[in-house]
Amino acid sequence: MCPSCPALKEDNPSFVLHGIHNTQYDERPVPEVQNDEVLVQIAKTGICGSDVHYLEHGRIGSFVVDQPMCLGHESSGTIVKLGPGVPASSGLTIGQKVAVEPGFGCRTCVQCKSGLYELCPNMTFAATPPFTYGTLCRYYKLPFDMLHPISEQVSFEDGAMIEPLSVAVHSLSNLAKMKSGDNVVIFGAGPVGLLCMAVAKALGAARVVAVDIQKERLDFAKAYAATDVFIPPPKNEGEGADVYAERNAAALREALSIPALGAGSLDICIDATGAPVCISTGLHLLRPAGTFVQVGMGPSTVPLPMFAIVVKQLTVLGSFRYGQGDYPLAISLVDRGLVDLKPLVTHRYKFADALEAFELTRAGKDKEGKPVIKVIIDAPL
Amino acid sequence: MCPSCPALKEDNPSFVLHGIHNTQYDERPVPEVQNDEVLVQIAKTGICGSDVHYLEHGRIGSFVVDQPMCLGHESSGTIVKLGPGVPASSGLTIGQKVAVEPGFGCRTCVQCKSGLYELCPNMTFAATPPFTYGTLCRYYKLPFDMLHPISEQVSFEDGAMIEPLSVAVHSLSNLAKMKSGDNVVIFGAGPVGLLCMAVAKALGAARVVAVDIQKERLDFAKAYAATDVFIPPPKNEGEGADVYAERNAAALREALSIPALGAGSLDICIDATGAPVCISTGLHLLRPAGTFVQVGMGPSTVPLPMFAIVVKQLTVLGSFRYGQGDYPLAISLVDRGLVDLKPLVTHRYKFADALEAFELTRAGKDKEGKPVIKVIIDAPL
Amino acid sequence: MCPSCPALKEDNPSFVLHGIHNTQYDERPVPEVQNDEVLVQIAKTGICGSDVHYLEHGRIGSFVVDQPMCLGHESSGTIVKLGPGVPASSGLTIGQKVAVEPGFGCRTCVQCKSGLYELCPNMTFAATPPFTYGTLCRYYKLPFDMLHPISEQVSFEDGAMIEPLSVAVHSLSNLAKMKSGDNVVIFGAGPVGLLCMAVAKALGAARVVAVDIQKERLDFAKAYAATDVFIPPPKNEGEGADVYAERNAAALREALSIPALGAGSLDICIDATGAPVCISTGLHLLRPAGTFVQVGMGPSTVPLPMFAIVVKQLTVLGSFRYGQGDYPLAISLVDRGLVDLKPLVTHRYKFADALEAFELTRAGKDKEGKPVIKVIIDAPL
Amino acid sequence: MCPSCPALKEDNPSFVLHGIHNTQYDERPVPEVQNDEVLVQIAKTGICGSDVHYLEHGRIGSFVVDQPMCLGHESSGTIVKLGPGVPASSGLTIGQKVAVEPGFGCRTCVQCKSGLYELCPNMTFAATPPFTYGTLCRYYKLPFDMLHPISEQVSFEDGAMIEPLSVAVHSLSNLAKMKSGDNVVIFGAGPVGLLCMAVAKALGAARVVAVDIQKERLDFAKAYAATDVFIPPPKNEGEGADVYAERNAAALREALSIPALGAGSLDICIDATGAPVCISTGLHLLRPAGTFVQVGMGPSTVPLPMFAIVVKQLTVLGSFRYGQGDYPLAISLVDRGLVDLKPLVTHRYKFADALEAFELTRAGKDKEGKPVIKVIIDAPL
Repeated sequence: MCPSCPALKEDNPSFVLHGIHNTQYDERPVPEVQNDEVLVQIAKTGICGSDVHYLEHGRIGSFVVDQPMCLGHESSGTIVKLGPGVPASSGLTIGQKVAVEPGFGCRTCVQCKSGLYELCPNMTFAATPPFTYGTLCRYYKLPFDMLHPISEQVSFEDGAMIEPLSVAVHSLSNLAKMKSGDNVVIFGAGPVGLLCMAVAKALGAARVVAVDIQKERLDFAKAYAATDVFIPPPKNEGEGADVYAERNAAALREALSIPALGAGSLDICIDATGAPVCISTGLHLLRPAGTFVQVGMGPSTVPLPMFAIVVKQLTVLGSFRYGQGDYPLAISLVDRGLVDLKPLVTHRYKFADALEAFELTRAGKDKEGKPVIKVIIDAPL
Repeated sequence: MCPSCPALKEDNPSFVLHGIHNTQYDERPVPEVQNDEVLVQIAKTGICGSDVHYLEHGRIGSFVVDQPMCLGHESSGTIVKLGPGVPASSGLTIGQKVAVEPGFGCRTCVQCKSGLYELCPNMTFAATPPFTYGTLCRYYKLPFDMLHPISEQVSFEDGAMIEPLSVAVHSLSNLAKMKSGDNVVIFGAGPVGLLCMAVAKALGAARVVAVDIQKERLDFAKAYAATDVFIPPPKNEGEGADVYAERNAAALREALSIPALGAGSLDICIDATGAPVCISTGLHLLRPAGTFVQVGMGPSTVPLPMFAIVVKQLTVLGSFRYGQGDYPLAISLVDRGLVDLKPLVTHRYKFADALEAFELTRAGKDKEGKPVIKVIIDAPL
Repeated sequence: MCPSCPALKEDNPSFVLHGIHNTQYDERPVPEVQNDEVLVQIAKTGICGSDVHYLEHGRIGSFVVDQPMCLGHESSGTIVKLGPGVPASSGLTIGQKVAVEPGFGCRTCVQCKSGLYELCPNMTFAATPPFTYGTLCRYYKLPFDMLHPISEQVSFEDGAMIEPLSVAVHSLSNLAKMKSGDNVVIFGAGPVGLLCMAVAKALGAARVVAVDIQKERLDFAKAYAATDVFIPPPKNEGEGADVYAERNAAALREALSIPALGAGSLDICIDATGAPVCISTGLHLLRPAGTFVQVGMGPSTVPLPMFAIVVKQLTVLGSFRYGQGDYPLAISLVDRGLVDLKPLVTHRYKFADALEAFELTRAGKDKEGKPVIKVIIDAPL
Repeated sequence: MCPSCPALKEDNPSFVLHGIHNTQYDERPVPEVQNDEVLVQIAKTGICGSDVHYLEHGRIGSFVVDQPMCLGHESSGTIVKLGPGVPASSGLTIGQKVAVEPGFGCRTCVQCKSGLYELCPNMTFAATPPFTYGTLCRYYKLPFDMLHPISEQVSFEDGAMIEPLSVAVHSLSNLAKMKSGDNVVIFGAGPVGLLCMAVAKALGAARVVAVDIQKERLDFAKAYAATDVFIPPPKNEGEGADVYAERNAAALREALSIPALGAGSLDICIDATGAPVCISTGLHLLRPAGTFVQVGMGPSTVPLPMFAIVVKQLTVLGSFRYGQGDYPLAISLVDRGLVDLKPLVTHRYKFADALEAFELTRAGKDKEGKPVIKVIIDAPL
């Protein structure tokens, strides 16, 4: 027992990456909360593609894992300790259920002070080098303002899913400024794409068009949040990439009776695939003055139809993680029943089986051939 | 003499494109002004790259010259006749000096009614198919609101230059929302790039960095409107395009002591070249949350560093021609002496020598090796 | 029968205001459609407060009825004739059900070209001097782009209600940029206030607080679209207006557990009353950086708590009618079932009984004491 | 001598308000810098109206001086000590000349994280209760990001003036989004009004219209930064306030040939007086869709022409102090010579004569009848 706080256990089992394909359960100390920090006992953690990427490659771009790093950053939990500087106005209390926003900025750089803390160059973010902590453990500490209370009716699983949901909220609401009545096309029916569809629907999209190459994923999308689905036709031999993209766009418009401009045309395109053909097709699909958003880390270099961007005066935006206001809106959408996260959690694992959970996420399908959307891992008891 | 208006001549000599490299001086009728149209006697017309492109290729993208088309769209002139529906509130009068905005929308589509008439799908634009009229002639008619009075102190040459200047105003002020104190980098020191530099300076840019591969163009830019200039280092053999672009960006920052973020970093990048390496370098140069604008028609497909766009949450905008408010601001900048257009007019031709003017524009340098920036043609007397 | 179009009747009975409290049924000619105009056979027309105001006072501010003017501007109908210049791309056809947007701008002034045609100084607006036409008649003509198709499932009554609904859409979506999750307080539970509540709810407001002094109106609002209602406490004798307003604001916050700032505070206030105490209370209620919108014509002069505006950096906006995009969004909200207009139509009259309809609207309650919200008049058969 | 930092003196003489009209020179301890704090040796401090108000009334609104409070918040100085947590990336060094931004937010509330730290409810601001420190002393400490380096060519007096200049920058650039070519009218030619004129000019206003009731102040304004000046005509006996305001507006437009809308009309109005007649006249002057900004604390309650706000869809904004980006832009404008602060400093005092400086500021004119604009006090040697 921790002497200063009897309710706490004294150990902090953690699922730690020690090298490529080398994970261990390490015993780490219980973090000491100082100033305005809060200690959370983790309840559930979802696995993200970036976690799997670190496991397999030991790096993402210039973020290199060169010392043991606890994995996991999509979490919910319960507040177990408040630092002495947590203001009463925060309303936070011991025992409160929270969604954990796993990164925080330096608060003093231009980005932080401009309302864009997601772009802070000194960001401290769970399971992201050079920071060595993650949320696949028992106890995790954060500054108080990164903990977002969730109501009793919201489950810990939903709480863990607020993180990827905030990615979708960031792209559609915060950046693309989606409005009720907008028509939205979303490429990719994986976890992020599906969450973007759910958010688009929740924010009042008139049409949510899902594009993917796998029929079963589109079936899921249609049952979940899409109003329309489309499988691109195969590329012809020798067909140029941009010609193919234009043909794709025309085929989609034809199939779904969507005009190129005016009433009913596509206002916003979200790409959650990173595939060049999707990005290119999306840009050809948009109406004049439409908005394209690349969600997530994205591929290094992609050929874009610059002529279309210019002639239609498109706005192309990169969307990185989430920022001010995104967690609260994500929670509000779930709390009001406007987004249903439950269908997306397809598989669950105990903490002791975390590695299996990673392997399943990488595989994409389970033994029965059922698609894996989101895998959730219980925290250690 | 036109009987209804004694001051008018009865003929309208026009410089007409009949096919690739096939121009003629045709006699066309004097346009009849109706409703709210106004007849302008053209004074000066500048040659634009698009005019030359039509002459050489007979088309630009999907705009195909399939019937004789009068060339020219950068013009100034004098009002010689007002249609019966021109409202008194317009303040337009016979004899007034005007800059001619050479295109107008349908006024009823979503784009026109949203303040984005440059995106009207039914645009009528001088010297652009399927419209067959241009301003390389004596008389040209337009709806009254497309004529922008210029004061007596503004020359007809300056008046003709308002058109390309508006392209620069559109990209920097209307789209990129440039503010005083911003740091701007501009790729390409041709006419459009130079005008962008002039506008950036006039709008209060702290630094205007000009990038080009020709030293003499940068010398001109430095003397004209740039605070800093940079010639990219040569590409190494076998070096990947994006690696080169990153190296370029780093070299520019090093050479000019420009940080990657925070105070003094680059807020806006304008590309006026269409060259993939410039576009890519520009995106690597921008600070987090910076804005990139592709000015002008642009190349068909360009490989972009999507990772940089996402991680920095950049905004990439296409800029097409000009729209609401651009002509008035362009004229105001010239009228107040904030932009000096005179140094840009390097060569002048009589109407009878129009073809020579086109050839010189295409050549880019005159017989003395002096760079050609803007060539102006007198209207027929 | 009109010879050129056999389906049309040859007369156009109209309900015309000849002076204060002086209305007549006049026979007016069937309008001739020219160019891009369209003739509509009116189906239903709602009565607006401004119609009643003209009947009673002969003027609204500087708009003076000095020649006979047909009343009515909230209408739906069927297209019966298309002018020769109506473009095929409009998709309009004879027999189509439409909501009628009753005003159009000059299309050439700065306001029209900036996407703010509602501010056109040369606006032609039904039942508004100096224009002498209104929609309380059989046939009405308009430029084609002012007619907004409605689907078969939308009733003509709903179609007539699109006009006041667009007023609400304009204030909340177009001007205040309301987002999902916002908390909105609306003063006044009359027709416009109720429509604002419906729109706030439809756009995803987390809370829609209705404030009125009549309990039965608030009961209606609660059943219709408000999440919370509040009746202000009476003013104390000798209490200063601003002190009272501050006390009002504090009482509302106390009663409904709404904080002054942070999570759950009020983001947007709409005043649909014009009453100074409401406006003042609303400004005291808003969170820092909140937005206040005065909807509708508004009172001449109102004492505002400027200190609160400055210290909280509030944005105070005037909202005038509706503009670009408002009719389409209003129709979309109804079409998708997000706004239910039916409960608001409380009384219906035949064309022959139009005057009675006006009297009832003015009275505000019918003989049974039932509140009058919206009165609809059938067009002449 | 302070043992840990030999260059520092051990005392910190301070000019402290002990009650209404009761000031003393107190000896206060030298602040100890911790974490990311920086100690500044103050060089110059300007007197602000709020300082004088506290001296005379002991309060401003709900801010009550109930314990001894050091006065002064408009200061420049030199860095003399860096806390251990000041990041190297800040570039701050001992000996650096800085403008002091005298307030900082909590960094964790919604306002701070949204880029609006000026609205932080937990703001710590110099010479503002409940904080008891001010800058009329020798040493003052602040978090490092509130210190803004100024170049050697910028004087300490200019450095002290950056504070009120930032108030002007905040209103015109940050809030009103003023653009080059805008026409701006500014009410009040006192220090804040004059600085607004200077900023409007520096940001490229086409016209800067100064309105005041004192001819000598307008003469100064005209020589300093205004393009046009106007003295309102006297109010007629019995004339209603709003009628007078409309007449004022009409008279100004007539006198200066300014149209009510379209080219040349007034885009932005800044009120730096708080006088109801000015505010009302300003609202009548603005073009449709124009922007009004109330700068500074403002009067408690002001009758506004709400009808004009609605019919013209005006935007009325409150402007409170300054926020993200305002100090850097203010410094940049001075550094680039776009704003000249020197003419505004009319009187200078030694630290020992601080009370005299306050009396002169309150008087508004010196013994020779020369207007007092800004009074600067030297810090103790």
